[in-house]
Amino acid sequence: MTTTATHRALNFSAGPGVLPEEVLRQVQHDIWDLGGTGIGIMEHSHRAASYDRIIAEAIADCKKVGGIGDDYDVLFLTGGASTQNHMIPANLLPEGGTADYANTGYWARKTAEECQYYGKAHIAFDGKPSNYTFIPRQSELKFSASPAYFHYTSNNTIMGTEYHYVPQPPAGVPLVCDMCSDIYSRPFDVTKFGLIYAGAQKNLGPAGATVVIIRKDLLERSPRPLPTLLRYKPFAENESRPNTPPVFAIYVVGLVFKWILKQGGLKPIAERNQSKAKIIYDVIDATGFYTGHARDDSRSLMNISFRTPSPDTDKLFITEAKAEGMDNLKGHRSIGGIRASVYNAFPTEGCETFAQFMREFERKHG
Amino acid sequence: MTTTATHRALNFSAGPGVLPEEVLRQVQHDIWDLGGTGIGIMEHSHRAASYDRIIAEAIADCKKVGGIGDDYDVLFLTGGASTQNHMIPANLLPEGGTADYANTGYWARKTAEECQYYGKAHIAFDGKPSNYTFIPRQSELKFSASPAYFHYTSNNTIMGTEYHYVPQPPAGVPLVCDMCSDIYSRPFDVTKFGLIYAGAQKNLGPAGATVVIIRKDLLERSPRPLPTLLRYKPFAENESRPNTPPVFAIYVVGLVFKWILKQGGLKPIAERNQSKAKIIYDVIDATGFYTGHARDDSRSLMNISFRTPSPDTDKLFITEAKAEGMDNLKGHRSIGGIRASVYNAFPTEGCETFAQFMREFERKHG
Repeated sequence: MTTTATHRALNFSAGPGVLPEEVLRQVQHDIWDLGGTGIGIMEHSHRAASYDRIIAEAIADCKKVGGIGDDYDVLFLTGGASTQNHMIPANLLPEGGTADYANTGYWARKTAEECQYYGKAHIAFDGKPSNYTFIPRQSELKFSASPAYFHYTSNNTIMGTEYHYVPQPPAGVPLVCDMCSDIYSRPFDVTKFGLIYAGAQKNLGPAGATVVIIRKDLLERSPRPLPTLLRYKPFAENESRPNTPPVFAIYVVGLVFKWILKQGGLKPIAERNQSKAKIIYDVIDATGFYTGHARDDSRSLMNISFRTPSPDTDKLFITEAKAEGMDNLKGHRSIGGIRASVYNAFPTEGCETFAQFMREFERKHG
Repeated sequence: MTTTATHRALNFSAGPGVLPEEVLRQVQHDIWDLGGTGIGIMEHSHRAASYDRIIAEAIADCKKVGGIGDDYDVLFLTGGASTQNHMIPANLLPEGGTADYANTGYWARKTAEECQYYGKAHIAFDGKPSNYTFIPRQSELKFSASPAYFHYTSNNTIMGTEYHYVPQPPAGVPLVCDMCSDIYSRPFDVTKFGLIYAGAQKNLGPAGATVVIIRKDLLERSPRPLPTLLRYKPFAENESRPNTPPVFAIYVVGLVFKWILKQGGLKPIAERNQSKAKIIYDVIDATGFYTGHARDDSRSLMNISFRTPSPDTDKLFITEAKAEGMDNLKGHRSIGGIRASVYNAFPTEGCETFAQFMREFERKHG
């Protein structure tokens, strides 16, 4: 294999995104032979002893990393986070009931839209008028009378905004969080949440697995008859294998949990993410050449969305960056501009290289 | 990487199962760097040019292998074949309508059970009284008055039975087939089918992707309001990426399609599968020591379920086989015994080695 020789790009993809290189090395080996079984990870039965260990460790390590207690279940589902858009109301919203949603961007809005098939979505905050440039303060959340749950999106991948506090729903109302793009990028108090979900493809692994952390009492809600695989409970009761699970994706997510533990857990990860983002935001703030999309108090540490003085200069920026091995910097089609995603696995040195490039680009074209 | 050195076991797993070694080699390389992009296959955005090519080729190659015309769409979904248990009636069965199912085993029964959430399942054939040892003849299928579709399972992984003809539903009634464990193991006339589905993890790739081949007119059936990702149409309209798809799994399935084409397509594949299975069935038929589960006319070429004179001898067989590098031979918990799965990627020499072992085991313990 010549893989070692290959030069790796600086991958700023918003997801699927960059993974730790030591994880990739392990996967390369295990594709051919998992732990001396003579069988590759893609070829092992989900009922084999090797997978029994993989799923048990993935669940245990997920709890260890997140400080998650026994009153929560960790599930590995499929269909991406978008499948949770209907699974959540299907499982938690009584027929004709109301759930509250904070609309802080593209994905937050889509989630609320899917609620209509099971009940009513009350928009507790609407960021659209302000072009989704900021995160609401607690006082800006207007809840309905008695919502079945309150849903928010902790980090908005496209807008580059992020909650820097955990919003509080009315007493007794479960807090549901789409944590896709900042899960395990910083410590958080799981006891404040009823349900947390995240597609793996940003901070946890490849696309193909969705992590759901659910408070056990919510498994007992049963507002309507649902097919087996649209209910959370059969997954909770069967280590997420009521049917064949996405073995490979779950295995990689398990390796990433072990990588996070090796880094010392979420506290050092969070500190590194702070300094990584600062390296880039400092260049944006240094002069008027670059403009960040998010209001200062709402800036994301994962996705840094900004623009140069003109769309043409944005294009040029992306082209020149790519020529220097910095890839996937194009902003989402819905807002354009430039987006640098710097998830857990993105190296600090990569941020420095990028900041240096930004300064030089400004010097040349400013 | 030391992978080349490692000894590989003979993997008789019923699924996830053995994959072609040249595919595994390609994956090992692309995990680190896909086609010189400097970015691994798990780290590429599903909107990147590299993935545009992967999904376009996967769809085109799937059609090429299966001889599938433009009146069909090829979709790549998630949730395993079991998710189709509810997606099919949800999308094709009118409220309170009836669909016909042939119950030829564990999975066929489970599929029919999930139909209840949308309408009525009429059992056109019930194999339970005969312990699922045979496949019904056309004349043994008793259809209801006007079913919305007729569903059958072309190969029963557990029972080791397989249809050697394509059953014919009443005129105008779409034929729906769970082809999980024998898709692309032999040629078939797609024009006889309305919808074909298969979890990838047997003949097509790793667990985590489900292939659905659907006749375009069926995409227009809309018997009830459904959340976006429970409908087939958004997948058909967006190259199976209305949201983030299981990029890695689809990429591997694409490699397997190319491998099948390199083998010369389904005709030579089918001939090889015929001779592979014959090597093992011949040993079963040679004496009275081994007993096959399936009736002769219903034998599966993919999953060979049989037993020795006693459960203890079965155990011994499985243990001694494993000691000689032949793994995953334990029969499904629901029927016990021994099961040898010999999917497309399982080598002919492996069948000969196994047959030799069977003869020796009989000599020692017969």
